Amino acid sequence: MNMHELTRELHVRNDSKIVMLVADGLGGLPLEPGGKTELETARTPNLDELARRGVSGGSIPVKPGITPGSGPGHLGLFGYDPLEFRIGRGALEATGIGFELGEHDVAARGNFCTLDAAGKISDRRAGRISSEESAPLAVRLRQVKIPGVEVFVEPVKEHRFVVVFRAAGLKGDLHDTDPQATGVPPLQPKASKPGSERTAEVTAEFVVQAQRLLAGEKKANGLTLRGFSARPHLASYDEVYGLKAAAIAVYPMYKGLARLVGMQIVGKAQTLAEQIDVLEQHWKQFDFFFIHFKYTDSTGEDGTFDAKVKKIEELDAAIPRLTRLKPDVLIVTGDHSTPSFLKSHSWHPVPTVLVAPACRTDGCQVFSESESLRGGLGQFEAKYLMSLALANAGRLGKFGA
Amino acid sequence: MNMHELTRELHVRNDSKIVMLVADGLGGLPLEPGGKTELETARTPNLDELARRGVSGGSIPVKPGITPGSGPGHLGLFGYDPLEFRIGRGALEATGIGFELGEHDVAARGNFCTLDAAGKISDRRAGRISSEESAPLAVRLRQVKIPGVEVFVEPVKEHRFVVVFRAAGLKGDLHDTDPQATGVPPLQPKASKPGSERTAEVTAEFVVQAQRLLAGEKKANGLTLRGFSARPHLASYDEVYGLKAAAIAVYPMYKGLARLVGMQIVGKAQTLAEQIDVLEQHWKQFDFFFIHFKYTDSTGEDGTFDAKVKKIEELDAAIPRLTRLKPDVLIVTGDHSTPSFLKSHSWHPVPTVLVAPACRTDGCQVFSESESLRGGLGQFEAKYLMSLALANAGRLGKFGA
Repeated sequence: MNMHELTRELHVRNDSKIVMLVADGLGGLPLEPGGKTELETARTPNLDELARRGVSGGSIPVKPGITPGSGPGHLGLFGYDPLEFRIGRGALEATGIGFELGEHDVAARGNFCTLDAAGKISDRRAGRISSEESAPLAVRLRQVKIPGVEVFVEPVKEHRFVVVFRAAGLKGDLHDTDPQATGVPPLQPKASKPGSERTAEVTAEFVVQAQRLLAGEKKANGLTLRGFSARPHLASYDEVYGLKAAAIAVYPMYKGLARLVGMQIVGKAQTLAEQIDVLEQHWKQFDFFFIHFKYTDSTGEDGTFDAKVKKIEELDAAIPRLTRLKPDVLIVTGDHSTPSFLKSHSWHPVPTVLVAPACRTDGCQVFSESESLRGGLGQFEAKYLMSLALANAGRLGKFGA
Repeated sequence: MNMHELTRELHVRNDSKIVMLVADGLGGLPLEPGGKTELETARTPNLDELARRGVSGGSIPVKPGITPGSGPGHLGLFGYDPLEFRIGRGALEATGIGFELGEHDVAARGNFCTLDAAGKISDRRAGRISSEESAPLAVRLRQVKIPGVEVFVEPVKEHRFVVVFRAAGLKGDLHDTDPQATGVPPLQPKASKPGSERTAEVTAEFVVQAQRLLAGEKKANGLTLRGFSARPHLASYDEVYGLKAAAIAVYPMYKGLARLVGMQIVGKAQTLAEQIDVLEQHWKQFDFFFIHFKYTDSTGEDGTFDAKVKKIEELDAAIPRLTRLKPDVLIVTGDHSTPSFLKSHSWHPVPTVLVAPACRTDGCQVFSESESLRGGLGQFEAKYLMSLALANAGRLGKFGA
């Protein structure tokens, strides 16, 4: 019996409001051993106040030592075991650019590459072609016509694009055509499981026409495809938790992830202040609000310690507007750590605080990596955060008599 | 490989004694944020001494955020994964009133209800009929005769009763007959899985005769049945741990749960002092003793903070008699929290202490919710307590060479 079977069975509905503020890549590292992390360096009087009023802990995104991408990171926070619910790269990439995958879609991530005269790959990333050069090529590939199949091609960044095939009966079980090597031609599309043969044919036809359309190009005269995947089937927040949920995010990736679990995307906010405007405007209509703050991650990825500190202080300044709404449960967390020391996502537990009337406070005085070690939530897998949220909202009945 | 596969393989027998003192609903909450819990308010010099000599931690009864009933709460402490071993409501209810379920029994929880002239339910709980009025009705239902089947009917509280059918070949996979609504008649008994058709027939016959016996009643002229369940099959303490185990409990529910895992019920104690008398009297005959103290839960359920504090102090006062017996492993824990603030069971981790020569002490100075956060057991799922107990008793061999 897994957590969703439990919450499906035990959830009750009431008028409580739950707010989950996700500061992407929140956790960090000091620049030198024994130093302070970005969060510990930042002046965060409001987050510290939450730590005093709430219960803290460290959220392990997947399992100890496992660094997640945005997909598994958010699925975990949303309570979907990231090891059980895997989103294929094609579907995630489509989601990330805001492409709404339908029931009959198969998505793949495409890379432009350079082919030599013999049709062998000489550069797997088409000379790191710029987005400006590659986007028109992706648009050009929309000329491909396959009878009975709708074809969508969307530019991503640099040599990357997304292709989506839409037709009843298509399945996503295909081997990559990217041989992960130079000096060999792209692989022929091939089903990895019975039932995907038709998708392999469609893909082969797409590749033939696409090569023709790219024939004259110097850098990007070829392509490889990988991460074929259909739309993932995730039960909705309403089904598994009995929550009418809203997502308030700026970037397409996070809106897409929220949409996959049945959250409604509300507002068109571009800043954190605007996101909270949207929250206020929709306060009455939803039970659960996911608010995504991107910049703690991007500054971490850039390796700019001071910039990340500033973004954390910006986040802190927004807290009073949240608490003024008096949510029954307020959670501040992150989908993973992104220490500027590493300039990348990492595996470290993410400082997390949950504030609710019956949360059992733990004596934590500040919101930080070190203090959360002493917190009442202990170190926990992110996937348990939603059952804690529901319990604290009075939305979970007793298990067994 | 689950814990029982491990302990079955690894356990060894020796002369050690393990005592597990379960203070039901032990964990609590402060009445106001930042205040003290019941346990932190109580004067507990003896429990604090155990915390100094032992290793502390917080026991998560099932999973984070999940509030257990007594059944899953105790199964967890006994080392039976409460998500794997589920006890049906009928079996648990029978257990709770001390009815010893046999191999060929199917139990269901019955509710008296009020039917209108058309046979539709007008009150699902028979006007919350008192125990005094309903008990004779339950006894009257013993007049039902079904060829080849022994029928037992036992009053519970108010509108509730338990019915047990005993005959070889009966199975417990039946849908509830309670439609969970008024204005409709009770549902026909129906098998939910192949193999339970005979039980459905037996139940239908019981209902027909029972309705006839209740026909003249004003309030309780009908009945619904739910939670059909056969006796759960749990491997015994002797099989999975190599322990000859005794249960010293006052209330039928806890005796029943202990019996399900093969513990022997000893003594007829009515007070904690008498329970310890029984412990002393049986000290030589068993390896493991489960002692159940009810009143930390009942005072919590009543929402009487001060009364719970007193009950904890009463528990504390009994500790010296336990330590005088010099158990090799002494554990004090609870099956769940019952904060008087919530007047109900809750999901919060339960302060737990284990004292044994090789327990690796952790610097904890008092026995409390906050202090146990710093304890050497960390936060752990209750189901791991038994392997810790066995290890500390020198009763678990090495896993792998």
